[in-house]
Order: sequence, then structure tokens, then C-alpha cells
Amino acid sequence: MGDGGILREVLRHDCVEEITMVELDEKVIEVAKQYFQESTCTHNFIDPRLNLIIGDGAAFLQKSKPNSYDVVLVDSSDPVGPASVLFENDFYNSINNSLSPGGIMCNQGECIWLHLELIKEVFTHSKKIFAETRYFYTTVPTYPSGQIGFILNRKKILKTDDVLNENNKLHVPMRKPDAKTNKLLSYYTPEIHSASFVLPKFAQDVFDKI
Amino acid sequence: MGDGGILREVLRHDCVEEITMVELDEKVIEVAKQYFQESTCTHNFIDPRLNLIIGDGAAFLQKSKPNSYDVVLVDSSDPVGPASVLFENDFYNSINNSLSPGGIMCNQGECIWLHLELIKEVFTHSKKIFAETRYFYTTVPTYPSGQIGFILNRKKILKTDDVLNENNKLHVPMRKPDAKTNKLLSYYTPEIHSASFVLPKFAQDVFDKI
Repeated sequence: MGDGGILREVLRHDCVEEITMVELDEKVIEVAKQYFQESTCTHNFIDPRLNLIIGDGAAFLQKSKPNSYDVVLVDSSDPVGPASVLFENDFYNSINNSLSPGGIMCNQGECIWLHLELIKEVFTHSKKIFAETRYFYTTVPTYPSGQIGFILNRKKILKTDDVLNENNKLHVPMRKPDAKTNKLLSYYTPEIHSASFVLPKFAQDVFDKI
Repeated sequence: MGDGGILREVLRHDCVEEITMVELDEKVIEVAKQYFQESTCTHNFIDPRLNLIIGDGAAFLQKSKPNSYDVVLVDSSDPVGPASVLFENDFYNSINNSLSPGGIMCNQGECIWLHLELIKEVFTHSKKIFAETRYFYTTVPTYPSGQIGFILNRKKILKTDDVLNENNKLHVPMRKPDAKTNKLLSYYTPEIHSASFVLPKFAQDVFDKI
């Protein structure tokens, strides 16, 4: 997350009132400022809405107040080695506690062509913790196999007054980006939001059985 | 096309009554029989519905009777060098003539991440020849950038008695695969058929302007 790319995207939406970003390694941010200006140049980690914390994201969430975040985005490295804790139950439970009643969380979910067994595991324990779990993917030509998936979880399915999604389903976009934001977007449309939840049969068959 | 992979897929559908396959180079078929058994083992280029012709596909179509094919599939190599003729107007006109009134044709359409300018050209001349032109894509992890697109064209938009597509739109699947065929499919579902026509904004914006 320290490259500032997700921050850049989040800041594009005026409806976002406050952002807390937790990065383990300060050096990552320094390097991003210097070399990844495509990610950082529009903000350079400076925005009145941003609260930037250098520290351990898992520890931070364990100590955070319950019901305090509408959205938690986890942009971790692969679920083996140092980042494996970010795919485990304790971490997911902390996130669930920290989310507001209508809150959602999203974690990178590897690629269905390469790591379906691993995804199945994370999906299975996510489903036990959250009220709704969905898998979606996007195309990233520079990634191995050209795609990356995400696991999207929802704390609670609210019947009414759902601030996050009036359609009450994660695969239906909550809203259209406003004209100003829309001009800045290269990939996202409400149509591609829904289409990205439609998976090839071999993958959908796996998720349907969980 | 000579590797037999498309033939394998087409043969899976009982509704297919007759197939004419034209391959320029007999050696390709010989090599496929010997080394690409994943593509060929289920048929080995033998089926009572198959009429296998060794020859030039473009020349073949020029001499073919008008209104004689419901579907023409072109699985060419890239539109530069020897296969470039397969992306030009003369070839597309021949295909259009050979199609039945409700007929469709599909050509490989490169990748929107790598060759958008080239795709734009092919899309533009396709639109001049055919009644409906659409672009869709699928994920293929072993291809450069992990995806490949297709250009899908329709001879005529029939208002009634449309044998190919009762919904009269290329991005809506014509029918659900029957149970027997469905068991053999790893990727295709009617849902992914429609989703594959939903493109990232940067690409959709280009097609919308043509």
C-alpha cells in the first residue's frame, strides 16, 4: 500500500471524509515519493483527509475502536511468508470488529489461474467471519498471468438505511462516480464493477461449493 | 486453427450440423496430432460433421457460395506479416457474402492493453461492412498480458425468426449449453458470455467513438 496508488484512487472520491493509512515500513513511502511518481505525484502523501501511520496494520486494527471504519482495504503481499498473518483469522476478526455496521473490507485475493486452492482457503475462513463474501477480479497486464483477484467481505447485511450499498449486494455498484471523478478514472465503470464478479466456470464452481 | 482446439470446442455442441475447417498448412495438423493432444485427442480431426480442407482460407471464402455459413471463425495469427490479409476489407467482404442472413463471424482481436490502435482500425472497417460489430475479451494466462480479445460481427440484424440470437444482441448469449456440453466446459457460462463484452473505461471510450 506504501506506493500510494490506492491512496491516489481513494482521494479521487469527494465522498471520502477521512483516511487512515497504515504502512509498516517508512522506507517504502520514501522510495515511492522518489521513484513511483505515477502513484504519488497527485498527492505525495499529503491531504487534509489523510492520517498516515507508520506501524503494523494488524496490531493497529487490534487496538482500534469497534465500529470505526466504513471501509478497510488491505493491500498485502502474497499470503506466504511475512504477510501470511494478513490472511489469517485473527486479522480478519480484528477487521470485522473495527468495521461500522454496514462496513466492507477488501483484500487482494491472488489469481484464480495460479492459486485457486489458496484462495479457497481464504474464502472459506472469510465466509465464517463475515456476513457476505464475494470474489472478483481485474486485469493487470504486468502481473503474473495478467490478472489479480480480490476478496470482498461485508460485516452485516443491512435491510434498510444501508449507507454503503442501497442494492444490498456487493456485486452491484453503490453509486456512479460523479463527473469530476469519472474524468480521472481509466478502468472503473459501474458496468465493469458488476462484470468483475462474473468468474470463469472452473472458479465459480469452486466458490459455489463453499 | 490447425491445432484443433477450436474444432474440439465446436464439436462439443450437438446443434452443430456441419463444419468446414480450412487450414493453410497440412504440417500444422500433423504436428498437432503428434504433439498437441490436449487439443486434438478427443477428435483427432475425425468427425462425420467435419469437412477438412487444406488450402488458403481467404481464397476459399472468395469462391464459396453466398449465404452458406451460419458462423465463420477466424483464428489467425497477428495482423502483421503473412496473416495481415485476414484483417483486411477484401477478406471481411468475402466472409460477409458467405454468411447466411443471420450469420456471425469472429476474429481474434488482439489485446486492448497492447494493441488498442490496431484494434481500433480493424473495428472501424468491420463496422463499415457488418450490421453489428462488438469487441469482447477473455483471460488466457499464457498470452502476453494475460488476455486476448475478439471482434464479433453480424451480417444483418434480423427482427424476427433470428436463428442465431433470439435476443438480437451479440452480447446476450443465444442459449444455455445443454447438460452434456456443460459438463465439458471449463470457462464458458452464459453469465461470462455477457460479462466478456464489458470493457475497461479506457477501451470502451475508444469503441464508443467509432
